[in-house]
Amino acid sequence: MIRLYDYMPSGNGYKVRLLLTQLGVSFERIELNIIKGETRTPEFLCKFPNGRIPAVELDDDKLLFESNAIILYFAEGTPFCPTDRFQHAQVLQWLFFEQYSHEPYIASVRYLVTHPDLPDPRRAILETMMRPRGYDALGVMERHLKSREWFVGERYSVADIALYAYTHVAQEGGFDLAGYPAIRAWLERVKSQPQHVPITQS
Amino acid sequence: MIRLYDYMPSGNGYKVRLLLTQLGVSFERIELNIIKGETRTPEFLCKFPNGRIPAVELDDDKLLFESNAIILYFAEGTPFCPTDRFQHAQVLQWLFFEQYSHEPYIASVRYLVTHPDLPDPRRAILETMMRPRGYDALGVMERHLKSREWFVGERYSVADIALYAYTHVAQEGGFDLAGYPAIRAWLERVKSQPQHVPITQS
Repeated sequence: MIRLYDYMPSGNGYKVRLLLTQLGVSFERIELNIIKGETRTPEFLCKFPNGRIPAVELDDDKLLFESNAIILYFAEGTPFCPTDRFQHAQVLQWLFFEQYSHEPYIASVRYLVTHPDLPDPRRAILETMMRPRGYDALGVMERHLKSREWFVGERYSVADIALYAYTHVAQEGGFDLAGYPAIRAWLERVKSQPQHVPITQS
Repeated sequence: MIRLYDYMPSGNGYKVRLLLTQLGVSFERIELNIIKGETRTPEFLCKFPNGRIPAVELDDDKLLFESNAIILYFAEGTPFCPTDRFQHAQVLQWLFFEQYSHEPYIASVRYLVTHPDLPDPRRAILETMMRPRGYDALGVMERHLKSREWFVGERYSVADIALYAYTHVAQEGGFDLAGYPAIRAWLERVKSQPQHVPITQS
């Protein structure tokens, strides 16, 4: 049985929960509270040196971390990942965009806004840099989705799952999606996929 | 002929230059000055909506951005990327680690330190957050390399190329690698690979 180390409010964890559910793959979820440092214990760091969730232990004791590497691992060879070489590269392009230009702003602003009592140096740049860069990422997505139903090719893929994870809860960080109609329509399409589960349900 | 939109001091651009050179693949390099906004022109944004280099135009006018998606595209099916399913996932794991936990700190500190006159909100968190997180990333690498020659499996791969790009110039941002002997030995191994080129030479 796959063991998924997870934290329920995490969009990065949600990517893995959502994909495995849609693939019909069983997994055991182990909840760790990142606020309480449960991913920085010696035992966890020994297995996963980066000290972050999500992380998975596969049946044969193989260990893997990084949400987008995990979802690609499970998606390869399924309808959630294209086989065409260039489309496959486009999926990777959007997954790296998500981790570099989207998550550090949209997810981190949500985290800071929903944990107002936690000290964090990033509060100094929340409104001057993080929020504007979050809107930059939304702008890139909106322009891309204006003429497309899905991020890559003609079907739902892990690129959509990765970008959905924090976009659909962006308003919890105070992002206003009113000016992003193509994103809002795409969020509805993702939500209506078979076996979709919400972020707070495994 | 592959067209690579690039900026010579960029470690992200260097990843692509280094891999294509080692693969023996010809390419035309188009230098854009990111400081002067040359990646934010309407013409560039029309092709590459994220407004960042490196980005490539393939022979058949296909467009791709995100450095790690580009190097994976070219590395698949070559000795620079493992075919074993789990090792392939480990390469992806380290590429996402590089873009999420390494580059935003080690590369960005180098950028801020080497451009002292450019205003940037991140200067407010340079020493309180960015530099410590850069050392965190180096610590993860050091522990991993203590018992290994390469990041994945028994050979040099794009995981090594991606992590080499900014680690080997980390001292330009004031990072001290004296306490990281395994990283320093690995840097020498990467540098001694056939057809290696330095960052400032295409």
